[in-house]
Order: sequence, then C-alpha cells, then structure tokens
Amino acid sequence: MNITTEQIFDRARTHNGFLGEPIDDATLRQLYELMKWGPTSGNSSPARIVFVRSPEAKSRLLAAMNPGNVEKTRSAPVTAIIGMDMAFHEKLPQLLPHADAKSWFEGKPALIESTAFRNSSIQGGYFIVAARALGLDCGPMSGFDAAKLDAAFFAGTSVRSNFVCNLGRGDPAKLFPRSPRLAFEEACTIA
Amino acid sequence: MNITTEQIFDRARTHNGFLGEPIDDATLRQLYELMKWGPTSGNSSPARIVFVRSPEAKSRLLAAMNPGNVEKTRSAPVTAIIGMDMAFHEKLPQLLPHADAKSWFEGKPALIESTAFRNSSIQGGYFIVAARALGLDCGPMSGFDAAKLDAAFFAGTSVRSNFVCNLGRGDPAKLFPRSPRLAFEEACTIA
Repeated sequence: MNITTEQIFDRARTHNGFLGEPIDDATLRQLYELMKWGPTSGNSSPARIVFVRSPEAKSRLLAAMNPGNVEKTRSAPVTAIIGMDMAFHEKLPQLLPHADAKSWFEGKPALIESTAFRNSSIQGGYFIVAARALGLDCGPMSGFDAAKLDAAFFAGTSVRSNFVCNLGRGDPAKLFPRSPRLAFEEACTIA
Repeated sequence: MNITTEQIFDRARTHNGFLGEPIDDATLRQLYELMKWGPTSGNSSPARIVFVRSPEAKSRLLAAMNPGNVEKTRSAPVTAIIGMDMAFHEKLPQLLPHADAKSWFEGKPALIESTAFRNSSIQGGYFIVAARALGLDCGPMSGFDAAKLDAAFFAGTSVRSNFVCNLGRGDPAKLFPRSPRLAFEEACTIA
C-alpha cells in the first residue's frame, strides 16, 4: 500500500478531539496485520491490544483516565489499550519454534519485566505508525490510573497496561500548536 | 516521500549480516529528522542515539555484544545505540514550553525511569520504521552487556542504553526463515 513519510511522521499530529466517524472491525484487523510484522526481541511479541469501542467498555475506561484525558477519550470512536503480557514467554514455542526460548525467561521476573515493557513499547511505536498509514489519527496517552484500568480490563490475566491510544479522525480545531523537537546535535552523535 | 507499508512492515526482515556499503552522515541525519516527529509522552523525547561507525568505536561496541551478535554487528556499516536520557526532564522547558512539565518529574525516580524506558522504546519503533523508509535494513538486538556498553559510551552522562540496532544493506544470504506472528484473536480483543 502506498503511503508517505509525511503521513506517518512529519505531518502527523497528536489529536486531542475526534469527529464522530466509527472505525469498523476490518480496519482494526488491518492495523494489527501491519504492526504485527515489526521486529521484537526473540520474536517475543508481548503486546496485547484491547480496542475499546462499545459504550459499556468506554465507560469502564473513562473511569480510569486522568481528568484531563477524559473528554478527548470520550470523543474517540475507538481507544486502544496497548498492554503487555507478563507471560509472553509461554508463547515462545509457537513464536520462535527453532529455539528453546521459553527457558531463557523462566524464573527470571526482572528479565521478563524489562523484555515485556521494552518490546510492547516498541510495538506501540509500530502501532501508531500503522494506524497513521491507514489514515487514522492517534492520541497516545500515559495519563491514567494503571491499577484501576488493569482491574477493569485485565483482571485474572497475565496482561498489564502499558499505554492508551485514541484512534479516529482527529478534529483539527482541537489541535495544539506543535511542540519543538531536539536538534540532531542534541539527540545524536556519530562515533 | 513515497514509501509502502510492505517496505516498512510486511516485507521488511530482521537482518543478520550486512553488505559493505557505507552510510553517509546525510542519511543518518535524515533518519533522525523523520523519527523525531513521532509522539512521546509530554513530548519528553528521551531517546539519545549514538551512531557507531568508526573502527575505534565499533571495536568498543563489539566488546560489549553477546558472542552471537558480534559477527553481524561487525558486518554492519553503522550500528545505532538507542539510549535513554535519565535526565530528559531537564529539557522539558524547551520541549514543552507552555507547561511546567519539569516539575512533574523532579524527585520522582520511578516515574523518570518508566517514562524514559517506555518512550525511548516507542521512539525505537519509530527509528526502525524510519530507517526502513530510507531503504536501510535493520537488525535490532537486546543481547549485550549493558553495564559494559554504558561504561564505553555513556560514562559521566545521564544516558543509559536501551537497545542496539544494526543498519545497512542486509545480506539476503544470511536471512533466517521468517518466524510466525500471533493471530489477531491471540493478541487483540474488541471490547
């Protein structure tokens, strides 16, 4: 599919309000079918995603969002919870069949934690790029009560929330002025 | 710039060996100028990147890589260290000038740690996509001695390594068979 770097990077903006247009199942599937190919450490693929779309689920989610994130989240037709499976290594016999990769993690909670957090976050980057590639605007957020959100969506599972991302057609009237970025010399060196 | 989703996702592969072609400064700058626009929490932008290209710097890097990652890293014309600045909040007056965002983090080491790790990893996802958009192949790796690498590249700074990524034109002869990904139903739910 033809896209542009402007669409996924230079001209894409974080949106703070969304217009009413719904997002259908096929688009959410297409989003996953793109992002799933992004590489993760040992193909661990720890990200788990809940696409919150029904009024009932949205209301559970809103109860966990910080006050400043409630209205924008209410306005989004879909809000994705990017979670991480803290038992991701149980799926490694399926995901990395040529190695005994499950044994690399068993009994190593700190390694499981850092691998799940790092790689589900990297997958979060793929998620945002893939959504933009499909013409969706994003509004990623870290401002929520993680314990409350996890109790509402992941109780009794090995999944924990990482971050949350509104999806839809952004309302240009609610954009903030664009914040600056670090210059190459501030962020990078060539050694 | 026109690109395709196949180029950044479906058909892109993790490479384990690289052909000799060098990568010039202009391409490394272009890579950063794309990825820098990807959103981060509060525009925190904690990723710091060292592009390791000189033989002297490469030799310091190789000494920190796990044995299985040494040869592929040696073959790459450039290896990027994706680091994270644990004092990223010092730059928030510049990056988020309309808020007193620096004060949200001061004296909160756990919040600094999770924000730096999550957001530099998300930026790592943007980095890989941006490299592929420019026609570079990637070989991201977590297998290295972080303490040794940090001592060799970040001594006396507030930066710590997150992960490492080989860059260049991949050698198709050294590709592994592609590992499977989780089905939509295994990784996602629509609530």
